[in-house]
Amino acid sequence: MLGRRGFDAEVSPTDGHPIVLAHADGANRKRDLLFYNHYDVQPPEPLELWESPPFDLTQRDGAVFARGSKDDKGEFVARLASLDALAKAGGGYPCRLTWLAEGEEEVGSPHLPEWVEKHRHDLAVDGAIWEEGGIDAQGHPLITLGVRGLLYVELRVQTISRDAHSGQANLLPNAVWRLVWALASLKGVDERINISGFYDAVRHPSPVERDLLAKLPSQEENIKKEYGIDRLLLDRRGIDVVAATFDPTCNIAGIGGGYQGPGSKTVIPSRATCKVDFRLVPEQDPYDIETKLRRHLDKEGFEDVEIDVLGAERPGLTKPDADLVHWMAETGEAVYGKQAMITPLSGGTTPTFLFTEHGVPVVAPGVGWGNFNRAHSPNEFMRLQDFENAIRHLARLTVRFAEG
Amino acid sequence: MLGRRGFDAEVSPTDGHPIVLAHADGANRKRDLLFYNHYDVQPPEPLELWESPPFDLTQRDGAVFARGSKDDKGEFVARLASLDALAKAGGGYPCRLTWLAEGEEEVGSPHLPEWVEKHRHDLAVDGAIWEEGGIDAQGHPLITLGVRGLLYVELRVQTISRDAHSGQANLLPNAVWRLVWALASLKGVDERINISGFYDAVRHPSPVERDLLAKLPSQEENIKKEYGIDRLLLDRRGIDVVAATFDPTCNIAGIGGGYQGPGSKTVIPSRATCKVDFRLVPEQDPYDIETKLRRHLDKEGFEDVEIDVLGAERPGLTKPDADLVHWMAETGEAVYGKQAMITPLSGGTTPTFLFTEHGVPVVAPGVGWGNFNRAHSPNEFMRLQDFENAIRHLARLTVRFAEG
Repeated sequence: MLGRRGFDAEVSPTDGHPIVLAHADGANRKRDLLFYNHYDVQPPEPLELWESPPFDLTQRDGAVFARGSKDDKGEFVARLASLDALAKAGGGYPCRLTWLAEGEEEVGSPHLPEWVEKHRHDLAVDGAIWEEGGIDAQGHPLITLGVRGLLYVELRVQTISRDAHSGQANLLPNAVWRLVWALASLKGVDERINISGFYDAVRHPSPVERDLLAKLPSQEENIKKEYGIDRLLLDRRGIDVVAATFDPTCNIAGIGGGYQGPGSKTVIPSRATCKVDFRLVPEQDPYDIETKLRRHLDKEGFEDVEIDVLGAERPGLTKPDADLVHWMAETGEAVYGKQAMITPLSGGTTPTFLFTEHGVPVVAPGVGWGNFNRAHSPNEFMRLQDFENAIRHLARLTVRFAEG
Repeated sequence: MLGRRGFDAEVSPTDGHPIVLAHADGANRKRDLLFYNHYDVQPPEPLELWESPPFDLTQRDGAVFARGSKDDKGEFVARLASLDALAKAGGGYPCRLTWLAEGEEEVGSPHLPEWVEKHRHDLAVDGAIWEEGGIDAQGHPLITLGVRGLLYVELRVQTISRDAHSGQANLLPNAVWRLVWALASLKGVDERINISGFYDAVRHPSPVERDLLAKLPSQEENIKKEYGIDRLLLDRRGIDVVAATFDPTCNIAGIGGGYQGPGSKTVIPSRATCKVDFRLVPEQDPYDIETKLRRHLDKEGFEDVEIDVLGAERPGLTKPDADLVHWMAETGEAVYGKQAMITPLSGGTTPTFLFTEHGVPVVAPGVGWGNFNRAHSPNEFMRLQDFENAIRHLARLTVRFAEG
């Protein structure tokens, strides 16, 4: 698709899924804008909750439904369409364009950092348009300046060589109990993470960031309605809802062990596993947190709980006063007719740190209806109206960027 | 099979699997011996650990392997073979025989109690030979006088209407965390069960029971070897290993929630479930424990954790001085050439209380190599030599019982 649009596109191997790097010339050769996307998606499970097949794009109620319709194929396709519009209207692109598309974003981009370091000379851009973002429930374009880091681990315990009859539960150690106790030692119902030193590097929002947060609508009611609940976690309200991204998390993404079928089976499970993701805030470092997690488990007597790191990314931050931020707000307001909302730190994770740490401003205009597109969930969707607006926004932004 | 052996056998419906009741006459019409068996088995999962198909009886290394080869089809077949031998040797059975076979033992016999109450007049027997038991690692025949009760529950939590992106983990309640915290409130690493009043009805071993326990080999080394561990739970040793059955348990038989596939998925699970079995000792009552469990969860703030009772049975106890106990020991010693070991309370559960509470002595001679037959686990087996000895033991016991 990029080759057909005049890009010099190359599929570059990694030890994981290959990375696509593409360049195209444009009218202003002194300005280079990078687009980042990813071609992988989250697993579609649980399949039974999909109203149409996850990999069969289905249109209904003014929207299209499929895994990736928002995150991130929908965003990628919107960008292609905006370039088509620019080429048709102007006879070419307004500036140099660089495209970076990876296939491991959803698993923490394990091979991207090394690859980016090797290709720094091809990535000397003046600004980057990342994925993620969107518009809020009231139709304001959202601009995201920062993302959280991530440490994703699988914890594993094996206590005995095989499952045993539960009549021996007084004698044999149960792997699920070991895991439950280890997890309960990490965080209690107060949501405070009890790993020693976990909060040491946390930087709280600056005055400028707090001003931006104060301008954001809280989203409290929308989120409650969307998930069918009466109150948010810890009863967060108002600014505490949008400011919550400045608090790191310890989330159990999945757990399994023993008999999970229908009815009863009386066994002592020999093995148990769980997946835990920590969303990290500036200036936390995932490898530092991994070290502290290991130390915590050992100290609490859980030397038998093994840690396997499945993903590690640092947080990435762009300064609110960067030109690119201003241009994105200005063009977004022109398209949507509503004031742009600038989010200093998004709840999610994507490896913008690879650019922000080298002084390249990175913003995410996003496509679609903010956090309400069911990204990562069954029935992920993209409203067609949002898709069209995103195309317009991206085209205007690219033109503005080329003017410098 | 019973009909071909001269039994008047009837398949009796229940709201679950039917119950088989059969009667046969014998030389002494004043003595009636009941055999209890069950035709259901535990699920065969995890299938990948079986070395031969679980439902294809396979002979190797002097043993037969299959789900049910011990528990309880192996025991049932041994009894049929002993009756064949008696009929051939003596021209008939030595006394009246009653056979009761159910199909829901492995799920806590939910329909047996009501059925037994309705059929009391058909069950006025003088003694009952239950399932379970065997020989120990040194070849001593084991005689079991009591079994523990059981409360088997499924605990369920739903926090939000669907799984969410874990970038919102500061805002949305996680069902797995709720379940982990609820479980951790039930029992800590010291194995003490923290449900208020849980231990109120526990009766500790009597002096006679402690004398019996003191004569039992500890099994400590065999269990450690069998499960590949260096020490038993709580570092139990010596008599504490055999006396452990007098302590009730709280065992997690299985847990599941969120993403359990390969690699990573960053979700907040909306739902989580687990299965917990409590093994109860005299004089604990499963419904009393259920009430206390509900009260505990409410008190600890886990009103959102639902309880579904999948099984409830009371403990059952036979007195050590019953004639049947003596006869079983005497005939067992004749067959095995080793002293019988009398276990006052087995770790497992089976509804002998339906008879013991009406004054009928119930003992379990068992078939096979005690707790080492991998009952409930992959590669369940029955050694052929154990099978033959069991047939001899049952035939001698039946003759001795008929003499009165």
